[in-house]
Amino acid sequence: MCIYCLVSRDLTRICQIGLLCAILRARKVVGARVQHVGSNTISSTSSHFSFTVDAVCAVTWARAGTIQTPHGAIRTPIFMPVGTQASVKSLSPADLHEAGAQIILANTYHLMLRPGSELIDTLGGLHSFTGWDSPILTDSGGFQVFSLGHLRELSEEGADFKSHLDGSPHLLTPESVMRIEAELGADIILPLDICAAYPCAPEQARAAMERTHRWAERALIAKERYRPEQTLFGIVQGAFEPELRDESARFIGNLPFPGLSIGGLSVGEPKAVMWEMLRHTTPALPRDKPRHLLGVGSPEDLVIAVGLGMDMFDCVLPTRVARHGGLFTARGRVNIKTARFRAESGPIEADCDCYTCRNFSAAYVHHLARVGELLYYRLGSIHNVRFMLRLAGRLRETIIDGTYPAFRDEFLARYRPASEQVREDQREKWKLAHQNERA
Amino acid sequence: MCIYCLVSRDLTRICQIGLLCAILRARKVVGARVQHVGSNTISSTSSHFSFTVDAVCAVTWARAGTIQTPHGAIRTPIFMPVGTQASVKSLSPADLHEAGAQIILANTYHLMLRPGSELIDTLGGLHSFTGWDSPILTDSGGFQVFSLGHLRELSEEGADFKSHLDGSPHLLTPESVMRIEAELGADIILPLDICAAYPCAPEQARAAMERTHRWAERALIAKERYRPEQTLFGIVQGAFEPELRDESARFIGNLPFPGLSIGGLSVGEPKAVMWEMLRHTTPALPRDKPRHLLGVGSPEDLVIAVGLGMDMFDCVLPTRVARHGGLFTARGRVNIKTARFRAESGPIEADCDCYTCRNFSAAYVHHLARVGELLYYRLGSIHNVRFMLRLAGRLRETIIDGTYPAFRDEFLARYRPASEQVREDQREKWKLAHQNERA
Repeated sequence: MCIYCLVSRDLTRICQIGLLCAILRARKVVGARVQHVGSNTISSTSSHFSFTVDAVCAVTWARAGTIQTPHGAIRTPIFMPVGTQASVKSLSPADLHEAGAQIILANTYHLMLRPGSELIDTLGGLHSFTGWDSPILTDSGGFQVFSLGHLRELSEEGADFKSHLDGSPHLLTPESVMRIEAELGADIILPLDICAAYPCAPEQARAAMERTHRWAERALIAKERYRPEQTLFGIVQGAFEPELRDESARFIGNLPFPGLSIGGLSVGEPKAVMWEMLRHTTPALPRDKPRHLLGVGSPEDLVIAVGLGMDMFDCVLPTRVARHGGLFTARGRVNIKTARFRAESGPIEADCDCYTCRNFSAAYVHHLARVGELLYYRLGSIHNVRFMLRLAGRLRETIIDGTYPAFRDEFLARYRPASEQVREDQREKWKLAHQNERA
Repeated sequence: MCIYCLVSRDLTRICQIGLLCAILRARKVVGARVQHVGSNTISSTSSHFSFTVDAVCAVTWARAGTIQTPHGAIRTPIFMPVGTQASVKSLSPADLHEAGAQIILANTYHLMLRPGSELIDTLGGLHSFTGWDSPILTDSGGFQVFSLGHLRELSEEGADFKSHLDGSPHLLTPESVMRIEAELGADIILPLDICAAYPCAPEQARAAMERTHRWAERALIAKERYRPEQTLFGIVQGAFEPELRDESARFIGNLPFPGLSIGGLSVGEPKAVMWEMLRHTTPALPRDKPRHLLGVGSPEDLVIAVGLGMDMFDCVLPTRVARHGGLFTARGRVNIKTARFRAESGPIEADCDCYTCRNFSAAYVHHLARVGELLYYRLGSIHNVRFMLRLAGRLRETIIDGTYPAFRDEFLARYRPASEQVREDQREKWKLAHQNERA
């Protein structure tokens, strides 16, 4: 029976009326059943997507789960390397598989501009295009429109912007994003949302959240025109207002999204604020849907956020800091370019099982990084991606065997994070480097 | 019995007197035997190096051979990818093995400056440092001193120069180069030589050649202090004077070098001039020693030079043009960035067996190249390196089965080389890019 309208007899599906019914329920307009019209049933996500909670932590909100997608299973907690332009920078699909990647993320904004979603569709979608045969998640492009594009106008219709590449005009609406993501063909897709800046006035935060909610409903309906094998996650917003975070979690959590992404965090706020927002978000989320913390993060972020109930993570940080010489170790981030590695005949980290550490000395990696050899970018990225994925796997193990809280505390006691100042400096440096790239 | 002095009884070795004797013979000072003093015998290359001619072409000077080194065999004709700074740009040792590389070249000049030959020695030599377990050849650094460094003074002693990196002063002598190359630990090493510019006045050409000859003798003697497992090739010079080429080939060919590199070509002269010089060089070379054409070249160069008796080739061209979008096909070089590849769902070349063509569409490679993704540099380089090595393998097959002349003619009829103008433009562009890198 349809889980929303309680009328449709097909237990594996939600009829279109059921979908609308759920939207209306979330709007608190109707609370119960809706009359069914005809037999126009639609595919539910359940035949193409499922999430099972395999274990929960008795002390924290951490859980271990399994997501099933058309391109295979994902064991959570999981880190998703980011392939902004249909390539995780410097890594091949084989490199990613060897590093233990189970799912990667690609950016709709970049791909709609180059090479274009229609072309990727013609070439069989992102899996065929990139040669990555495991799950893919695409974001909605909204975040990049706000952070990269020259935004011309934000209206109820959508976001009118000019490309950061050539100034060409584009319009993203909740509906066009569904079409574009259908053309890209990822397993998990996200709806257009509005990511408020930090800091943000409460009334702006509410307005952005409410529009995000309306866009979520439009996306749900629009998505039904496209690929049933794709699963649309909802995006929770609410900026930095605890009550808005709670409200958004309930609203989006009640819509028929099989999974949820937590947006609007890690946009410049102090870490403590981010964790505080998660504390107000997680309890309001349905327990049976996977939770994706958008754009997070560093190793320590992963360890903490798992305890706050998050299952999925994506961030360019591991590959980006690697390209600048920052490599993760159990004791914190090191800079491979420093003199201490010049004559180090052992690997970057003694017990690391990554391809780089198994095959090359730290001295060689140091040399490649210092002289700017292209091979360095790959070897450094492999190390950091493997670090994140081994960490995610270790978190899963500790959740299953009941030792997550101890592991978390030990990890955080040992791991020296980059200071806020270092982070700020790096952010500026990257921004500059990025501007130069574009110039 | 020593093959030079005919006195020493050890057939596998040349005694030091034998070595000197050979040098004197080449100088035409003595023609026959020299009295032996003591039992101070030296290792011959023959226990660590051998060259066998497997087949010769009945029509041209082409031959197929096998070189044995301490790190394995090399089937000739062979192309050697260049790992300037101890890395073939963007490629890992595994990539090189998969592309069929049998031997790579590394540049002494770059490595003596960064990370330093002493450090590489401490770390077990280039094989251990890079993880490349097959043969390696190092050049002498001379060419880079003349083309990159700020040369301060060239004297009979050696070349006094300032590093192009930090202006630090360095002196390369025939003796110091032997020490540096011993520290680097390649299988095949080259002596310091003087590469004349094009064009070059005949008297300058002679002076450079004669000093190169004197340095070759000093290198032979100095080399005896270091690793017997390394094989020192001689370098033939003579600029663009046919009689000097002939003279240098005879002089260097008569010295106890187990192999010979032909230097001073491909330095800006028209291709026809290069081939003319080879026509005057090859007949004067001993037939039982492998011949390495330094710094050459393009696919068509390889095909032509094999017919002129060359066995080994090295050049940055295949990897460098790949990084700029130029990819080799049987019909000539194509630019992967051009629109014709935008929607090409097939590989770069239909029957190419390289990793790139087996795994990715031309459209994806085109996209990566257009947006400047790091993965492009690797995929493009793999394609071109594999092209060169498949071509070398094909040349070997045709020499063995007697069809080389027909293959050469068919290849050259089909393959459209980059025009001299395109080459000149590219050279300028690269020079500029290189200057920017250094800035």
